Amino acid sequence: MRYSKLFGKTIREAPRDAVLTSHKLLYQAGFIRESTAGRYFLLPLGLRVQQKIQKIIKEEMDKAGAQEMIAPILHPVELWKETNRTNSVGFELMSIKDRNKMEFVLGGTAEEMLVDLVRKFQITYKDLPFNLYQFSTKFRDEIRARGGLLRLREFVMKDAYSFHETEDDFKTEYQNMWNTYVAIFKHLGLSTIVVESDNGYIGGEYCHEFVVENEIGESKYLATKDGSYSAHVDVAQFIRDKKNLDEPESTMVEVKAVRGNTMEDGAKLHKKPLWQQIKDVMLVDEKGNMILAVVRGDLEVNEVKLAHAVGAYYFRHATVEEIRAIGSEPGFISPIGMSKKVKIVGDPSLRTIKNAYTGANKKHRDLLNVNIDRDYSLDIEADIALAKQGCLSTTNLPLIEKKGVEVGNIFQLGFHYSKKMHDAEFMGKDGTKKPYYMGCYGIGLARTLATVVETHHDERGIVWPNTIAPYQVHLVGLDLKDEAIKEQAETVYKQLRENNIEVLFDEREEASPGTKFAEADLIGIPHRLVVSRKTNGKIEYKPRISKEMQLLSLEEVLNIV
Amino acid sequence: MRYSKLFGKTIREAPRDAVLTSHKLLYQAGFIRESTAGRYFLLPLGLRVQQKIQKIIKEEMDKAGAQEMIAPILHPVELWKETNRTNSVGFELMSIKDRNKMEFVLGGTAEEMLVDLVRKFQITYKDLPFNLYQFSTKFRDEIRARGGLLRLREFVMKDAYSFHETEDDFKTEYQNMWNTYVAIFKHLGLSTIVVESDNGYIGGEYCHEFVVENEIGESKYLATKDGSYSAHVDVAQFIRDKKNLDEPESTMVEVKAVRGNTMEDGAKLHKKPLWQQIKDVMLVDEKGNMILAVVRGDLEVNEVKLAHAVGAYYFRHATVEEIRAIGSEPGFISPIGMSKKVKIVGDPSLRTIKNAYTGANKKHRDLLNVNIDRDYSLDIEADIALAKQGCLSTTNLPLIEKKGVEVGNIFQLGFHYSKKMHDAEFMGKDGTKKPYYMGCYGIGLARTLATVVETHHDERGIVWPNTIAPYQVHLVGLDLKDEAIKEQAETVYKQLRENNIEVLFDEREEASPGTKFAEADLIGIPHRLVVSRKTNGKIEYKPRISKEMQLLSLEEVLNIV
Repeated sequence: MRYSKLFGKTIREAPRDAVLTSHKLLYQAGFIRESTAGRYFLLPLGLRVQQKIQKIIKEEMDKAGAQEMIAPILHPVELWKETNRTNSVGFELMSIKDRNKMEFVLGGTAEEMLVDLVRKFQITYKDLPFNLYQFSTKFRDEIRARGGLLRLREFVMKDAYSFHETEDDFKTEYQNMWNTYVAIFKHLGLSTIVVESDNGYIGGEYCHEFVVENEIGESKYLATKDGSYSAHVDVAQFIRDKKNLDEPESTMVEVKAVRGNTMEDGAKLHKKPLWQQIKDVMLVDEKGNMILAVVRGDLEVNEVKLAHAVGAYYFRHATVEEIRAIGSEPGFISPIGMSKKVKIVGDPSLRTIKNAYTGANKKHRDLLNVNIDRDYSLDIEADIALAKQGCLSTTNLPLIEKKGVEVGNIFQLGFHYSKKMHDAEFMGKDGTKKPYYMGCYGIGLARTLATVVETHHDERGIVWPNTIAPYQVHLVGLDLKDEAIKEQAETVYKQLRENNIEVLFDEREEASPGTKFAEADLIGIPHRLVVSRKTNGKIEYKPRISKEMQLLSLEEVLNIV
Repeated sequence: MRYSKLFGKTIREAPRDAVLTSHKLLYQAGFIRESTAGRYFLLPLGLRVQQKIQKIIKEEMDKAGAQEMIAPILHPVELWKETNRTNSVGFELMSIKDRNKMEFVLGGTAEEMLVDLVRKFQITYKDLPFNLYQFSTKFRDEIRARGGLLRLREFVMKDAYSFHETEDDFKTEYQNMWNTYVAIFKHLGLSTIVVESDNGYIGGEYCHEFVVENEIGESKYLATKDGSYSAHVDVAQFIRDKKNLDEPESTMVEVKAVRGNTMEDGAKLHKKPLWQQIKDVMLVDEKGNMILAVVRGDLEVNEVKLAHAVGAYYFRHATVEEIRAIGSEPGFISPIGMSKKVKIVGDPSLRTIKNAYTGANKKHRDLLNVNIDRDYSLDIEADIALAKQGCLSTTNLPLIEKKGVEVGNIFQLGFHYSKKMHDAEFMGKDGTKKPYYMGCYGIGLARTLATVVETHHDERGIVWPNTIAPYQVHLVGLDLKDEAIKEQAETVYKQLRENNIEVLFDEREEASPGTKFAEADLIGIPHRLVVSRKTNGKIEYKPRISKEMQLLSLEEVLNIV
């Protein structure tokens, strides 16, 4: 490709609102342009990189035995109603009606569509297992898009769906996909950590994120130093450290407590540690049910864990009026004497303390020496506390808080879809129909691309890994007004292409050497070649990552690149 | 690929509603499944073919100097308002609002998006020309989808947009794309005819369809036997044959005419030929303007031509009430004495007759001996008549009516978009800004795939051209319960793959030879190989298109495939 002909050249300034390095560099180097927030044009350079990422993913997926196909983007809304996801996904879903008033969802993920496809066939145990994948445009009506390609509202995703006769067979495929993802990200030059995470509206019982550790990431996770445990904050488990369990249980008393409504106000008034207090959070789920989440005072409620514990989709905090209407008082809520209308969900951390203090469901009244089982009981006891830095992992090491970019994920779906959707069955060996066991597996291409830039750049620009660079060689011609030099540069260009090497050839006569080198560094192609008067019939070679130059013959160059 | 693992096997019955051969065969052979009307899943076999078509198109487009990029599918509706296409495209456009109430169009074509991209750059005459193309999913809310892939509501299109400094430069690219399309369709095994056609809501002044002649096609066109002229019926021109021009003009008279409302009723009553009658069609455009289209009695009004002549988007017939409200009468309409509120548009065919007869704008009253210019005049005189079989082409040969499938099209856009959209300009050599001159070029991939099936099949199934067959070789193993034969078949499978040959390997033990051969014929892979007891260590080779079999060694097979 001749640089003078390339659509999307480099530009000096980054977009005014650009914060992320990948946003700035991809824009400046001519890889992307924004259409609307979260929706981007990939310019020729950007699309070349995305296509190479796609090719690597395809090769590894095919090697793993998955089969590529493609589903429509417009999903009939009836399918999403079959699994109740029109409710659980919420606002991220975009829907549209056609001229016949038939309603469709713009696909953001395709579990229902794939089940709908598979149930069109009379499948038997002999057809199982199979893993179908596609590269297709996905839509998510995100509240906030981030600059550049990190969080988009429209993007190409590789999504795969596997169908199995048994859970054991699924587990083999889950490991197969796990290994495939490790291989894919390695080819892409990304070092990933596999993190347990929440399945959110995808459903199922467990899943893992592939995360690239980076400060700009939106995935918060906790990991031990030795890597024996790593999990997203939403799901991270931890050992509750025992506090004053040796203390004998004292008699519960109600006392006057003229104080503010915060946990700190309580600790200050009673001159006791925060961990001895009981934290009571009154929430309302999407159906209007009131839930009192109770954890030890030094911990926080994890709403994701809570949602799983009570089978809800999401919560809001109860209003002052709602709290008073059930006979309690904001700032003085307590599980003791709580209305039967409220479901009390408590964390095991409540069992690590004795003689706790809490409100008395009345303004300016507190209870002291409160003990679980003796003074109050829980409707549900479950892990609902948020793990944080310093907590002890289940492998007995302190957890360290980290941030990273989620570039891929793998989900166990189990029977989540096949039991909700009719006819999602196969004929078993015994002649009876059974639901299939499923998994799904996603990689966002554009986010992966942006993450490579976040992890592969220097102060001068992008440093593409060889595997996905838009071109292998950036050939810079200098002194091109000299016909002999021009001819030499053109010959090198021709010979490289004849050797099937992808070359970007900067053959502009007017640009200065400084400009050309700066642009080459910004674009980030791995191998830079220069032909000029100074190179004297040879070719100057410099890798993007190094400052050392060598004068080589064409043959020597071909051996390197 | 092992056939036993392939997702999407052959099936005996075609869908009940299937009419088209391509629909039946692609369904039965396991290439496609319908999601909703006009929206299909491409199964692994189907996607492989579409990807090969895409690859061929990409190679030819790249060779022609075009650059691939990709635009978002959701287009901000403001762009379509800038060019007034929210009105001109009508119901085919689907639109959607996001959670912030921002409105988007689901892209059906991307002229505005590409202009919006290009105007983000400060381009100068040095950057021109360029041609940007993409493969992206397109949406059209068609009134009727046809079965299978011939007319879809969602499909992948290759759409290209070229930008030029001058019309001359554009014309070079138009020819370049024309030649590129000829090459593409040749590679795909399609013989195309290039037909002048209407630009519809795309805009611009002229365009050409690439049509594969076929009875099932929806493109009606007229062509001369020698190919010197071919044009879509919407735009086909023809020479108006002269009728009774030698006749002296008689005096116009109004007569009593108790007759029905049809043309034939008039001819019968006055005992004169149909061609001597004047045909008056009262239409109302999308803005409510009344238009009287007048043609010679043996011709029809061509509404597409009429729309261009008056600058309207579409018409409906005027109601009885509307016709009476302007002082006329259905069945007795005449240009003579027509209300000034009505725009009279007449065809040159009116100048080929003398002493015509027509209504008198009153019930049961006709006018005889009517002559143009003397008795009535036209507000607009333009070619508004429909060409038909037997008419004389502008190359002086009779036109023949044909049908075909439109697989591609190329459009001159001129300044249609760059003048309507702000800042759609480049800096000229003289330092002033000017709008660029544009063209656009589309190919629908799925329709092309279906057209290949329509033109490449026999009574047993599909006959894929080598270039786009899902696999090159269909290897059938027989007698596989015999371990030695099984090992031989497996070896052949392995060796073919080691030689980079794409093989579909039917290694099922239970299926009968007859079933396997029938399925192979249905799927339509070009080369069939059989390993069985009978082949005696060799390989039986049969091309899909022939009945002759040969016993060959592996080396000989490799030489052929």
